[in-house]
Amino acid sequence: MTLVFVEPIGVTVEIPDGETLLGVVTSGAVDVPVDCAGRGTCGKCLVRTGAGAFSEPNEIERGKVPASKLAQGWRLACQTTPLAERVSIEVRATQGRRQILTTSRLHPGEPHPAVVREPVALELPTLADARADSERLLNALGATELPLGVLRRLPQTLRDGGFRAIVTRYEGRPIDVEPPDTDGRACGAAVDIGTSKIIAYLFDLQSGRQIDQEALENPQMRFGEDVITRLTQAIHSGRLDDLRRAARGGVNELLARLCARQGLAARHIYDLTVVGNTAMHHLALGISPVGLGGAPFAPAVAAPLTLRAVELGLAVNPEAGVHFPPPIAGFVGSDCLAVITATRLAQAAAPSLAIDIGTNTEIALVHDGRIRVTSCASGPAFEGYQITCGMKAVEGAIERIAIAADGEPRDVRTIGGREPLGICGSGVVDLLAGLVAAGIVDSGGRLQPHRRVRRSATGPGQEYLVAAGPQGDIVFTQHDVRSLQLAKAAIASGCKLLLAEAGLEPAQIAQVLVAGAFGNELDVDNALAIGLLPAVPRERVAFVGNAAGVGAQMALIDVDERRAMSALAGRLEFLDLATDRGFNEVFTGELGFV
Amino acid sequence: MTLVFVEPIGVTVEIPDGETLLGVVTSGAVDVPVDCAGRGTCGKCLVRTGAGAFSEPNEIERGKVPASKLAQGWRLACQTTPLAERVSIEVRATQGRRQILTTSRLHPGEPHPAVVREPVALELPTLADARADSERLLNALGATELPLGVLRRLPQTLRDGGFRAIVTRYEGRPIDVEPPDTDGRACGAAVDIGTSKIIAYLFDLQSGRQIDQEALENPQMRFGEDVITRLTQAIHSGRLDDLRRAARGGVNELLARLCARQGLAARHIYDLTVVGNTAMHHLALGISPVGLGGAPFAPAVAAPLTLRAVELGLAVNPEAGVHFPPPIAGFVGSDCLAVITATRLAQAAAPSLAIDIGTNTEIALVHDGRIRVTSCASGPAFEGYQITCGMKAVEGAIERIAIAADGEPRDVRTIGGREPLGICGSGVVDLLAGLVAAGIVDSGGRLQPHRRVRRSATGPGQEYLVAAGPQGDIVFTQHDVRSLQLAKAAIASGCKLLLAEAGLEPAQIAQVLVAGAFGNELDVDNALAIGLLPAVPRERVAFVGNAAGVGAQMALIDVDERRAMSALAGRLEFLDLATDRGFNEVFTGELGFV
Repeated sequence: MTLVFVEPIGVTVEIPDGETLLGVVTSGAVDVPVDCAGRGTCGKCLVRTGAGAFSEPNEIERGKVPASKLAQGWRLACQTTPLAERVSIEVRATQGRRQILTTSRLHPGEPHPAVVREPVALELPTLADARADSERLLNALGATELPLGVLRRLPQTLRDGGFRAIVTRYEGRPIDVEPPDTDGRACGAAVDIGTSKIIAYLFDLQSGRQIDQEALENPQMRFGEDVITRLTQAIHSGRLDDLRRAARGGVNELLARLCARQGLAARHIYDLTVVGNTAMHHLALGISPVGLGGAPFAPAVAAPLTLRAVELGLAVNPEAGVHFPPPIAGFVGSDCLAVITATRLAQAAAPSLAIDIGTNTEIALVHDGRIRVTSCASGPAFEGYQITCGMKAVEGAIERIAIAADGEPRDVRTIGGREPLGICGSGVVDLLAGLVAAGIVDSGGRLQPHRRVRRSATGPGQEYLVAAGPQGDIVFTQHDVRSLQLAKAAIASGCKLLLAEAGLEPAQIAQVLVAGAFGNELDVDNALAIGLLPAVPRERVAFVGNAAGVGAQMALIDVDERRAMSALAGRLEFLDLATDRGFNEVFTGELGFV
Repeated sequence: MTLVFVEPIGVTVEIPDGETLLGVVTSGAVDVPVDCAGRGTCGKCLVRTGAGAFSEPNEIERGKVPASKLAQGWRLACQTTPLAERVSIEVRATQGRRQILTTSRLHPGEPHPAVVREPVALELPTLADARADSERLLNALGATELPLGVLRRLPQTLRDGGFRAIVTRYEGRPIDVEPPDTDGRACGAAVDIGTSKIIAYLFDLQSGRQIDQEALENPQMRFGEDVITRLTQAIHSGRLDDLRRAARGGVNELLARLCARQGLAARHIYDLTVVGNTAMHHLALGISPVGLGGAPFAPAVAAPLTLRAVELGLAVNPEAGVHFPPPIAGFVGSDCLAVITATRLAQAAAPSLAIDIGTNTEIALVHDGRIRVTSCASGPAFEGYQITCGMKAVEGAIERIAIAADGEPRDVRTIGGREPLGICGSGVVDLLAGLVAAGIVDSGGRLQPHRRVRRSATGPGQEYLVAAGPQGDIVFTQHDVRSLQLAKAAIASGCKLLLAEAGLEPAQIAQVLVAGAFGNELDVDNALAIGLLPAVPRERVAFVGNAAGVGAQMALIDVDERRAMSALAGRLEFLDLATDRGFNEVFTGELGFV
């Protein structure tokens, strides 16, 4: 992998060796536009080369970039290939607005993984020293026990290798013994089980470097899109085991894809960390979530769990550790803990807020050494789900859109520069903010008469025609507005109550860190405009991407971080919105647009 | 169960409530004959009632027992039922020759099992105390962790029972949580995996009392009758997994029979102890026995192992502990350790020898605080296997036979008094000793001419006609004599070399304790006559039955005993006969009959 350090924002992005800087531009770490999917035709992906060697400008670049700029080092990212292992580039100051969390940035030191591999050379058994094989090995390792699966093969493995072997340990305990000529590294995966999406990050545990990542829709979706439906299915319809198997199948599918792509043997994955909300945690583990089905919403377990992969049916080394950082409460999961860890929120000197927006949104506030957390059921509207023309942030999704004063769409940008197929989360926020600003959505959330507003063809009420797409009109309905109103009111109420609990006003918040799967693409001004975020100056808002995933990665490559997370869990104070008598009033007040 | 104390030998035998004393007579603890299988027709099972109440003499007894003897308390065991929970009876002095080990005798105190059950009553969750279910339970128990399987059901179990439950712990760790109205006791099983036979003893762990027992042929027999064949199958023919599954299937079958007969739920079996020779240990665990296939015969593991039942596929509670006491060396297994434990050999003040005769025979010698052990491949001849008309000690087997001076059979006694079908181990020893004494087998082991000696109909060489049975002639062939010669020479050589190593003569041995599945029925004089046992006065010889099984039982009901066994293993000094240069000479010298 090639490491690209990006000035002035100070993040490092990894791209495969021999590939162009397009990977940096599309990593989400910077805000450099690419409208031609890297074909070199739009000429927008300008970056300035810094330290290290790069490929010479090619024909395409010489046609798109003025000679004077080329001389200053400005290049098209999609045509420029780093020729050194570590290089630096510069982007325009306004293009570095986003603060993307990456493990390499947050964990700059040596990795300290649970898993280490070491070669051993044992003395051969003789008549005078016919010690048992396992005793011989354990004496040499200073360890006390071998897993049964390893013990079963040990005599053959040792004899095949002339009593030389490679031993893999997990927290000091030997968990694998392989022939001395075994090729392969010790790998691990950080897994973020979201209600809608499961993401797996593959790491080399020795270097602490990310190798690859992969995501898929949570296969539990077929049992219900939202957490409550799935809990009901598990508690009242006997589907707990089906839900468990669905989650397991999703994780195994991700791991299989990663192994296939990297030519990695699954048995060389020795460690997993898994984060998720408390319902996902319970359902993935097959733990009855009956306590989460009603007040007082007691989870089944709030301790960190480290299980063996074989117990969970995960298709990695059977003795691999699978670490689940602790859930905090019924509706504040280990994903929230991971966000707090990844953002270093607990170490913040000034009042700081972290908001992880998803189907369930968790909010954490640090102030005066106390960490308060809460959660609210925000629904999947901000992820593009349950919106008439909503879609995931994939090619063809409208990710940016402005509405002119006359109510007409303008500057419509789709992912990959393709014809629009639908609207993803960031586009929905832009659209809503634009329609409110243009007066087409009034302060109560009602669509007003306009040339583009018409009776909905698909349901009751009105709709706004966003664009004519190749697969039909893209519209934004009254129902969509209502869904977004409810979602943003839930999130805003959570923030408001948490601040009130701490005796703080929004203006006193030094930073608002916004995490979420869609977060990279959100427009701060628009998010502030619709009241999704507390009213703070826009420069205090930073998007941190999938911070939960980064927290899981940190726990994967550093056991001290893992322990710190468990300790941190004990410090979190949970505010239960469901039992807060002021919630309904605040919620109602947050429904409209000021 | 009713406890029957037997004078003058001082053993306690348990029989089911309401059953006659026949169970005592057939327990193997005493040498009282029963020739009519308890129908009351032979009149031989005379015992004298002592303390406690008994049923009145019935019609059958009044017909068989003279009034004067009835008045003295002499009764037919098969017709007399104890009416109290504890009674005592007396047998004639000569009938108490055998020293049978029973757990109740060796472990007279309170049981100290690994498993305990206790009720818990937890506070109900409230909004003010929404602790996680597992935290709530673990706090109450002062424990730290729950198995995943228990955690999965915990929320439902607690809610179903109003947060009251019955908790089962294993060495302090909670391994089961059940509704408060659960009926059932905590049970365990001691398992003795012999090369030929697997025996399981079912215990109530709270009382430390044996409930039942069951045995079957080791299903591994189909892969080879002897250890070496099975090792070869595992090492060179890839049958290790088949052998493992065969052993597991046998144990599961025994447990299923015991549970069915006792109306016991398999999930209430929470603890197992398993003993066996090292090959059986490895094969049952699925551990590669490649180290046992050649010098220096290093076992794969010589440490005690405690595994979870689910890991081994045993059909009991998945979290049940399965404890394997440590093997000592390649051919001295945990069964030998169990024999030493059961016979209290390590505590003997005077030089003592324990011989566990089986397909593989282990010998242990205690002298001057040192415990030396060895083993020899004696083959299954003394168990009735690989003998032309050999059979197991079941109904129809000749278990006693004398040969008159004229070479004619006399006093033939079969098990159950039936027509003879074959000869079991004890009958084989009687027969061989009798034929040697009558000169029909000479000192070199050759069959001599005699009216009953004829050319074998089934194979090469001569044979002696023992009896005409309903299913054909019962014969004893030259080949049978050779098999027994090899077996007894192996055992005798082992004893001789072990004594020589300790600088002892046979006459210095204070006691010779003979264990083995057939041991109860062996005739001491005959065993001494053929040189199977060292030349000691006959009163120093005691048969102790399946002492390995008793050792496993002791480890089952007392964790301190379990730990003591592990400590004892470290004290045993293994003498490797295979590498003793004097072995072949001694062996050759022991082949004949003096």
